[in-house]
Amino acid sequence: MITVLGLVAGVLTTASWLPQLRRSWRTRSTGDLSWTYLVMLSVGVGLWLTYGVAVADVAVLAANALTLAALTTLMVLKVVHHHAPGEAR
Amino acid sequence: MITVLGLVAGVLTTASWLPQLRRSWRTRSTGDLSWTYLVMLSVGVGLWLTYGVAVADVAVLAANALTLAALTTLMVLKVVHHHAPGEAR
Repeated sequence: MITVLGLVAGVLTTASWLPQLRRSWRTRSTGDLSWTYLVMLSVGVGLWLTYGVAVADVAVLAANALTLAALTTLMVLKVVHHHAPGEAR
Repeated sequence: MITVLGLVAGVLTTASWLPQLRRSWRTRSTGDLSWTYLVMLSVGVGLWLTYGVAVADVAVLAANALTLAALTTLMVLKVVHHHAPGEAR
């Protein structure tokens, strides 16, 4: 039951990145997202991932692995769109 | 040691919201942040908080309590700025 709670929580926090990625992909605008935020969050999520491995917590592990993938994609979008024509910021 | 890892991870993922809040506060622009993302993430973080209580994991509990507070502040900023003059989106 507790594991299910963790898994549902993990699915939600992880899946929440999909609408954000979708928005950033469509609008090609990511200027409102702070670089400091994205980098700090990525490092933190990477440590959570290590923590999940250390305490053998599947929910923590899986959620943070997928979140890290989403964050990486978002940062790639931010770099690409920043250098694309028509995006000034 | 493992608890320290969790706490450092928690501090990073939680503190990462500060530069994002600072940016959103300064620019008064939050249009690039997806509502679906913010709401799903908040519900997920709320469940993580419950999970942290259930498994008595202080790192998970503390990190998610503070993240939820940051997310709530960000959503308030998004609502306020959306209705403020000069902000079209």
